Amino acid sequence: MSLSPQQRLVTTIIRNQGKASRSDIARLLGLSRASMTQLISGLMERGLVMEVGDGDSQGGRRPRLLSFNDKLGYVVGVDVGATSLDVAIADFNGKIIAQHGEAVDVREGPQAILGRVNHIAQSLLALVDAQPSQVYGFGIGVPGPVEFTTGLLIAPPIMPGWNGFPIRDFIGQTFQQARVMVDNDVNVMALGELRVGAGKDVQHFVFVKIGTGIGAGIVANGVMYRGHNGSAGDIGHVCADVNGLVCHCGNIGCLEAMAAGPAIAARALKAAQSGASDFLAQRLQAQGILTAADVSRGIMVGDYACNEIIQDCGRLIGEALASMVNILNPSMIFIGGGVSNVGFQLLAAIRQAVLRRSPPLATKDLRIDYASLGANAGIHGAVALALEHVFKVLE
Amino acid sequence: MSLSPQQRLVTTIIRNQGKASRSDIARLLGLSRASMTQLISGLMERGLVMEVGDGDSQGGRRPRLLSFNDKLGYVVGVDVGATSLDVAIADFNGKIIAQHGEAVDVREGPQAILGRVNHIAQSLLALVDAQPSQVYGFGIGVPGPVEFTTGLLIAPPIMPGWNGFPIRDFIGQTFQQARVMVDNDVNVMALGELRVGAGKDVQHFVFVKIGTGIGAGIVANGVMYRGHNGSAGDIGHVCADVNGLVCHCGNIGCLEAMAAGPAIAARALKAAQSGASDFLAQRLQAQGILTAADVSRGIMVGDYACNEIIQDCGRLIGEALASMVNILNPSMIFIGGGVSNVGFQLLAAIRQAVLRRSPPLATKDLRIDYASLGANAGIHGAVALALEHVFKVLE
Repeated sequence: MSLSPQQRLVTTIIRNQGKASRSDIARLLGLSRASMTQLISGLMERGLVMEVGDGDSQGGRRPRLLSFNDKLGYVVGVDVGATSLDVAIADFNGKIIAQHGEAVDVREGPQAILGRVNHIAQSLLALVDAQPSQVYGFGIGVPGPVEFTTGLLIAPPIMPGWNGFPIRDFIGQTFQQARVMVDNDVNVMALGELRVGAGKDVQHFVFVKIGTGIGAGIVANGVMYRGHNGSAGDIGHVCADVNGLVCHCGNIGCLEAMAAGPAIAARALKAAQSGASDFLAQRLQAQGILTAADVSRGIMVGDYACNEIIQDCGRLIGEALASMVNILNPSMIFIGGGVSNVGFQLLAAIRQAVLRRSPPLATKDLRIDYASLGANAGIHGAVALALEHVFKVLE
Repeated sequence: MSLSPQQRLVTTIIRNQGKASRSDIARLLGLSRASMTQLISGLMERGLVMEVGDGDSQGGRRPRLLSFNDKLGYVVGVDVGATSLDVAIADFNGKIIAQHGEAVDVREGPQAILGRVNHIAQSLLALVDAQPSQVYGFGIGVPGPVEFTTGLLIAPPIMPGWNGFPIRDFIGQTFQQARVMVDNDVNVMALGELRVGAGKDVQHFVFVKIGTGIGAGIVANGVMYRGHNGSAGDIGHVCADVNGLVCHCGNIGCLEAMAAGPAIAARALKAAQSGASDFLAQRLQAQGILTAADVSRGIMVGDYACNEIIQDCGRLIGEALASMVNILNPSMIFIGGGVSNVGFQLLAAIRQAVLRRSPPLATKDLRIDYASLGANAGIHGAVALALEHVFKVLE
């Protein structure tokens, strides 16, 4: 099945808008009514596009709206986290029709985790009476650096055994019709905000994930920006403090080593042991371990040391984001990831540091806020990633 | 004169390629031979496009090549520096047909400098027997932050009197047919490399200007990236040293305050006065003043202190560029601007610092080198800036 460049433009418009009338498409492409009619007929004959109802009248007859044929095929979105796995089946309009999530340990390696992905996807397809041969695209987000053109993880620090593993081939053995796209988890979250979240009409934005690590996804001129090797937005190893801690990457004072989840936990341990926080000392005694969540609870009960830890981490993250604001001049920064909700103090400290260290012109219209899709940014983004590439398979 | 979206696509292809055959254009746009012929005929009837010779045969008859009608009109490119002014007249194919440069002081203010621009442009037009009414576009690069959508300078530190000055209106009084585009000087240099320099086939690159200030222009996904307010790439005020000097912007340790031309001169003065460099002490006594050029000469005669100054500035610039590499993952960094040629030691120190502070994946294919257009990047970029927008006037 082959699509002409013009047909591909039409499918892109429908994908981005969800539903579109013939006259919308004709206007956007600058086509005559006759050319438009011919183009759409071709797509409808192939079963790709169908009429789904009436739009608002612009004075005359109500226009018929076009959308993808939701029975034509499916895509699978996969969100692999360090300790969780989510899989969703969606139709060609991006509507999720079946979804499953479970706890996993990504360190079990690619064979085990991707075996689960295949199994869950097949089960979900059976649930909606569909076949693996009807899956035309996979979008997979993973918590490590990905060379986007090859879909390979490159030396991922928290994913032993995944380095260079052929994810595409592995999935392709079961889903032979599917084009498999792999991307870094935070890029996938940014794509989710861009396609179905609050980033929908934003031309330039940054999505920052604060969790076990710290990373960012970049939308530039309305499209995902991945850079030459797919490593764009990799801010975890920007230097946050020249006199700081040694990072697992070998450099000194990397943002990730100073302000991500494990760094917050380490600071909490120090505060508990030094006597700076009775609250944390009690938690440590009760649990034998401290995490960022304990610091979050400490803030809620007004613990001074907890407050100080989060404000300092927020300042370091904000200073790194100020570099991003200097360099990228986005109009929006979304803050997401498991550690981002430790307390509003974090967001406030981030905002302060960004404003202090950025030029006034760059912060004139800048908004900094929590991700609009919350924990669902990843799975929506994975579905969107699959959809962006699915028609290349259908050609 | 109105162009359809398809005609605009054709003019974009011809502008980017210089010359193109009908079959090239048909292939790129996915058009039938008949539609193509009709489209081109329309553009030729309007006098926009003309045949300029034969291309290489692909087996059959040699194809006729199409280009812009170079008699249809002109654009003016203007490169305003802190102490220099260059003006060029170019045809619609971007070929510069007349050019003039002179020393100015940008602090004389917009009326004086832009008055000179008008005068020089009119004189150059007279030289080539053309009228101001035949100028359809102006591209102007200025050494300060520009809000690209309005063409206004916003609080430019080294351009007193230019803040918010209506450059477009001023030029428009003399050149009433012209669409006037204003951009930051380093964005214009990056555009020059993108259109006629070594950046021509590079999808993601950064152009760094090291002069009185330090700034960068960004090309992302093959197009200029300016960000939401046009301040993208404004790296002069990224923090280079938390314990550093106070910058004119009020922050501490800004890159510009630590490593640009005036900082190099200040370090040289200190080395001369402290006895660290006999060479610089002698120059100071002879001239009463020291500049970055003196440090450059010191390196050539093997002066240790001069070498150390440049290596340290290179390290600071390289560390800031490492942030850009982390964030943008470009495949090329061009180094330009008046201070960039102080010595290869600077380039070497920049390269070392970038490699040390960037993730391996991001530097796998990265090249860092001098700008390919040298001092002409600005004027070529200004012409390209005018051309990118000229057809919006012709519509």
